[in-house]
Amino acid sequence: MSAVITLLTDFGTADGYVAEMKGVLLRLAPGAVVVDATHDVAPGDIAAGAFLLGRTWPAFPVGTVHLAVVDPGVGTARRALAVDAGGHRFVGPDNGLLSRPLEAPNAKAVSLATPPGASPTFHGRDLFAPAAARLALGAALRDLGPAVPDPVRLARPPLVREGVDIVGVVVHVDRFGTLITNIPGARVAADAVVRIGPYDLELKTTFGDVAAGDPVAIVGSGGTVEIAVRDARADVTLGATRGAAVRAAAAAAEEG
Amino acid sequence: MSAVITLLTDFGTADGYVAEMKGVLLRLAPGAVVVDATHDVAPGDIAAGAFLLGRTWPAFPVGTVHLAVVDPGVGTARRALAVDAGGHRFVGPDNGLLSRPLEAPNAKAVSLATPPGASPTFHGRDLFAPAAARLALGAALRDLGPAVPDPVRLARPPLVREGVDIVGVVVHVDRFGTLITNIPGARVAADAVVRIGPYDLELKTTFGDVAAGDPVAIVGSGGTVEIAVRDARADVTLGATRGAAVRAAAAAAEEG
Amino acid sequence: MSAVITLLTDFGTADGYVAEMKGVLLRLAPGAVVVDATHDVAPGDIAAGAFLLGRTWPAFPVGTVHLAVVDPGVGTARRALAVDAGGHRFVGPDNGLLSRPLEAPNAKAVSLATPPGASPTFHGRDLFAPAAARLALGAALRDLGPAVPDPVRLARPPLVREGVDIVGVVVHVDRFGTLITNIPGARVAADAVVRIGPYDLELKTTFGDVAAGDPVAIVGSGGTVEIAVRDARADVTLGATRGAAVRAAAAAAEEG
Repeated sequence: MSAVITLLTDFGTADGYVAEMKGVLLRLAPGAVVVDATHDVAPGDIAAGAFLLGRTWPAFPVGTVHLAVVDPGVGTARRALAVDAGGHRFVGPDNGLLSRPLEAPNAKAVSLATPPGASPTFHGRDLFAPAAARLALGAALRDLGPAVPDPVRLARPPLVREGVDIVGVVVHVDRFGTLITNIPGARVAADAVVRIGPYDLELKTTFGDVAAGDPVAIVGSGGTVEIAVRDARADVTLGATRGAAVRAAAAAAEEG
Repeated sequence: MSAVITLLTDFGTADGYVAEMKGVLLRLAPGAVVVDATHDVAPGDIAAGAFLLGRTWPAFPVGTVHLAVVDPGVGTARRALAVDAGGHRFVGPDNGLLSRPLEAPNAKAVSLATPPGASPTFHGRDLFAPAAARLALGAALRDLGPAVPDPVRLARPPLVREGVDIVGVVVHVDRFGTLITNIPGARVAADAVVRIGPYDLELKTTFGDVAAGDPVAIVGSGGTVEIAVRDARADVTLGATRGAAVRAAAAAAEEG
Repeated sequence: MSAVITLLTDFGTADGYVAEMKGVLLRLAPGAVVVDATHDVAPGDIAAGAFLLGRTWPAFPVGTVHLAVVDPGVGTARRALAVDAGGHRFVGPDNGLLSRPLEAPNAKAVSLATPPGASPTFHGRDLFAPAAARLALGAALRDLGPAVPDPVRLARPPLVREGVDIVGVVVHVDRFGTLITNIPGARVAADAVVRIGPYDLELKTTFGDVAAGDPVAIVGSGGTVEIAVRDARADVTLGATRGAAVRAAAAAAEEG
């Protein structure tokens, strides 16, 4: 079976940068199955890229190569990495973008050398894509470079206990305006009231459990608490965005 | 030959939802050829999704699996469907999104059970993608669930005879600002005048048949009357949008 | 190995036109690997399409078929072309879109007939995609139509010597707001000062060579001079856009 290579970048799709990377991949690893994850990460937003990579990679088959490039420091001294996490492989800059797979047990990282002649402003094409192609062709991680014991990992967004509550933050606002938090659904009480700004919302199962236009808190498809407004945008209706504080009563097992 | 699976959603490409679905498809149906149809359906716009699915599926090879998710009622009691129409297979919510293939002669529909543990807000990943993968792997429609005799079908947009005219509506405005109607080209007179708002337009063959900046009516690539403005946007120039009434003289065979 | 077919259009991804083309390709050339290059060329912007095609095609493997459609004259008397340039094949309208591959040594062009029944407004689906499928299946260029000795080529953007300077223009503004010029990096002095509007910028290696918010000139990944602002948009910060004049001291070998 041909190797799958996913692409996650902040390049957009209007400039041809993604196409150049695809060309390199198909030239160096003929037969590879190249899959667009997303190219719509906001320019230079490493934390958003790390969140999206963390959400998407576990859905793919073991053996997939995930090529991720959100790289405002391209061409500086920041290292370039290849990572193995449970048989998934990752290639990208050492700036925290690969934080989630690096948290996996037994994650391993190696440092990639910059090929001679590589453009100092397009390592996606000249450094990361060739490394991804090598992995897709069967190279072992250790063949790509020396071990890196201290890859950069972003601090997780704040998630703290305050009395009987868990307090987290909105980590992503999706296309529908839904506010996705970092509060694990398993850690909140089944009858929890979820508070964001002045709003107290009962935890429900899905959007349809409230009337159109009403806000609702649910445990979302990523396993964390989300706040939505049925048939409308929660970010607009509730006036909240990434970074907003969210509070919920902890589950009994959490009681301190 | 590997099965083709098309994806049509209102998820956009910025959130990773599409990537998660692709991961599930490639994990469950290795070797499937996954093709983006569009992810830019306006959030929750079932009618627009149905129009686009209706336009695109006939171009694909028989045997293709079309995975379509515009699903504002996700997690409620609305049914989930798999449909066979002339050897094309479809998977999606029972909310009218699959109306066009359901109009095909001998179309058959079955109901899909929600897998245990499925997220109530992401059936695209947890219910529809696994069903699409099973079809891609060769499962028969009847293997997926019990027959549904009464799948939801959207009413067709209005198209009526008024004296010697056919009166329809704009059903889609495309990227170029072209107004696409539901009036079949075969039903209008070859020398018809097409009226929209205060504008009377002669039916021509292509955009280049009028001067730059001038409006023109043609029979478009979908087989229905379209109204365009050469090298400009008809929606802006003519002040019309989806739902606008359009009138044209009927062909002789139509004369009543 | 299956043939690769790239798609470059101004169709956007919201309308289903691209999906129809993909369906035709996969129906006529089963097993072809269909790759999105970009669909975000501004509507009708042939020069932008030619630039992007010129940037991306060399990255792909020899034998790739590049299907490019930016075609405001669709349905008029403009010819339809298939082109071979160094073993890469191209299909698209004869309006200058294919200018870059046509500049290649030994480039050959043939004219494609319009198939009976083709929509006069969607040659992408009915003329170009079928021709691309034939090439992907192994047809020779000469099998597709008669030779065209005089395909349309766009004039290159102006690039002139003025005393010790080379003067070119901004030919593309990318997603990051970076201004890409047509001045070859190899033709400017290593210590050149690059002037755009009132700004004099030293030539550096990468964005990280200046402080955040500062402008910088570099030789970009396409081999020409680019002007960026670290962690910001050069087009906004410097008030420049496509067509802006840019001047740099010529390399010694250029001295007149």
